[in-house]
Amino acid sequence: MNDEIFSDEPTRLSETIVKLFAGQTGGTPPVVLAGESRAELTVGADAQDDCAVFRLTGDQELVVGSDYVRGPKFRLYEMGVLDEYDLGYYLVAANVSDVAAMGARPIGLLSVVRYPREMTDFVFGRVMEGIRAACADFGCPNVGGDIGGAERLILSASALGICRPGDTLLRRGACPGDVVCLTSPTGLAGAAMEYFRSRRVDDVIEAAHRDTLMASWKRPQARVREGVALAESRVVTSCQDTSDGLKATLESIAWSSGVGITVYERDLPVLPAVAAVCEHLGVNALSTVMGDSVDFELVFTVPPSQVEPLRAEFGTQGLDFCSIGLVTADQETTLHWADGSRTSLPGKAWRHAPDRPGGLRV
Amino acid sequence: MNDEIFSDEPTRLSETIVKLFAGQTGGTPPVVLAGESRAELTVGADAQDDCAVFRLTGDQELVVGSDYVRGPKFRLYEMGVLDEYDLGYYLVAANVSDVAAMGARPIGLLSVVRYPREMTDFVFGRVMEGIRAACADFGCPNVGGDIGGAERLILSASALGICRPGDTLLRRGACPGDVVCLTSPTGLAGAAMEYFRSRRVDDVIEAAHRDTLMASWKRPQARVREGVALAESRVVTSCQDTSDGLKATLESIAWSSGVGITVYERDLPVLPAVAAVCEHLGVNALSTVMGDSVDFELVFTVPPSQVEPLRAEFGTQGLDFCSIGLVTADQETTLHWADGSRTSLPGKAWRHAPDRPGGLRV
Repeated sequence: MNDEIFSDEPTRLSETIVKLFAGQTGGTPPVVLAGESRAELTVGADAQDDCAVFRLTGDQELVVGSDYVRGPKFRLYEMGVLDEYDLGYYLVAANVSDVAAMGARPIGLLSVVRYPREMTDFVFGRVMEGIRAACADFGCPNVGGDIGGAERLILSASALGICRPGDTLLRRGACPGDVVCLTSPTGLAGAAMEYFRSRRVDDVIEAAHRDTLMASWKRPQARVREGVALAESRVVTSCQDTSDGLKATLESIAWSSGVGITVYERDLPVLPAVAAVCEHLGVNALSTVMGDSVDFELVFTVPPSQVEPLRAEFGTQGLDFCSIGLVTADQETTLHWADGSRTSLPGKAWRHAPDRPGGLRV
Repeated sequence: MNDEIFSDEPTRLSETIVKLFAGQTGGTPPVVLAGESRAELTVGADAQDDCAVFRLTGDQELVVGSDYVRGPKFRLYEMGVLDEYDLGYYLVAANVSDVAAMGARPIGLLSVVRYPREMTDFVFGRVMEGIRAACADFGCPNVGGDIGGAERLILSASALGICRPGDTLLRRGACPGDVVCLTSPTGLAGAAMEYFRSRRVDDVIEAAHRDTLMASWKRPQARVREGVALAESRVVTSCQDTSDGLKATLESIAWSSGVGITVYERDLPVLPAVAAVCEHLGVNALSTVMGDSVDFELVFTVPPSQVEPLRAEFGTQGLDFCSIGLVTADQETTLHWADGSRTSLPGKAWRHAPDRPGGLRV
């Protein structure tokens, strides 16, 4: 009996959740209505992906996921750096990012907003306005959900998106030789957290950097246009967002695909604001870029011959990405340093134990 | 400025939510993908219904809603009457009931389960097993969601269902002359709450009644088969579940449809277990049947000529319903007592102010 055991989340995922949901994908009978209407689960909880996927009647896949965001991670709210409008905005970004990571175009968001007795109408309205603003920015209307009282502010949501059949992007599918790409440099959210928590926030970091750091939490951007472009290209072999940190994302794609990934230090972009914070605080910049920084970039893999055509297509839409590494056959995730040495990936992975990558979002 | 105002939920719905979402239905452009694939919001948050509805490519409507359930209402858990397995089961029933009330067949559930540090693996597993059991009972697989830590147990979910176009049941649409029907008698959940909270639980109520009362909270049944049968009949003019209590449901259908409803005391069923508790505690039975009892029955309206054909169709599936009243043109909701007198509906409405019926689930 495990009635005295308190496992961490990765262990609960692997010990409880994986066992409970084994065989769901492929083992769940389709729902069939009169008139040929049907829905079939093609990516279930056992797939350990950002979202579940249903194949629906007609030329369509439905992508759905949930994220709860108000928890111990919101230190910046407790510190007064973020307000309730920002939390509403963040809730939407986190949820829409999961849909974007599957290559789906968002169609709607359900928000759960429970508030404490001492929250005024004004502040409640600010939460809802933040949600609405983010929904407008990401083209994902807030179509319903639940409001009501609770002991404290509780924010959770579900996002829905659609894809053409076969376009949905999964964590599995990366092949040896594929190029590993990133929509935009990571590390801002992690650097911002370190900076604002350090209480050494006076005039050391220039104002433009501070604004950039602040924006990573106040107005995080779900990569919707990028995700849709990746899906429509039909050349992407795997994709995941970096909401658990870049290291965890790379390990998860590698584990899900049964491959390894080598990242090259020389190709890893470090933003000036991140470099400034790390220098100021004496923190290793690559650990911040790779570690538990909760950014919402997309990591994806592409066959080498398709990288430049994809970049050209991105360019026509005013989008860009960078290449940071290669998929390998050896199932190791390593960093190839500029001096020629190799190590495991630096930085701590958020939430997932090193030997259990993959955030099963059950 | 309303920075000193702390409104209740109905006021926030009418003052904040309704204004924020005005015009969403009909005013939201459809999402269109290459290859004719599209999704159009046909019932948004402004519609104040149990769920939002999207019209998708192919012969299909998608119905989605969210319910948070772990709140002050779970006194029976705090009292030890319900365990964590029961809470998991309840979470699913509450969410699937909203989909059933729209006449949709459930296709999947996203569950959010956040647990305190002191919750053991065993107890966490029990929550998940309760969710899985209910999902199996309602034919609605748990396809994903979110798990992780929090200060206390937090349970929320979203349910998805599909319908053929035009089959979706709404709160609005009841017409004067329609018969008001109910899938099964209400009041059990309310009577159970009164009974177990009274601490007068010894041998006064017979054991069979106690089991029935307990089951109303431990194994609440979402009326999935009934909802689908109502939708497929294409004769139902409005529908809603009774999760806010029968009185609130009747007022909401009347308000949404711009009609009145007269309920007849002689037709209102009172279950033996409810009658026994009310007699024991000196509580008015009709107040319990009509009031804030959180049952998951369906109230629906049907033209009089269609009642018997619908009952016959229900009979072929082993289902039944009862008729409790009539839709009127006068916009009043009244109870017609057996002695010929008329009053407003007895019992307190849960959550919604009397002049603001309609639970907008934003």
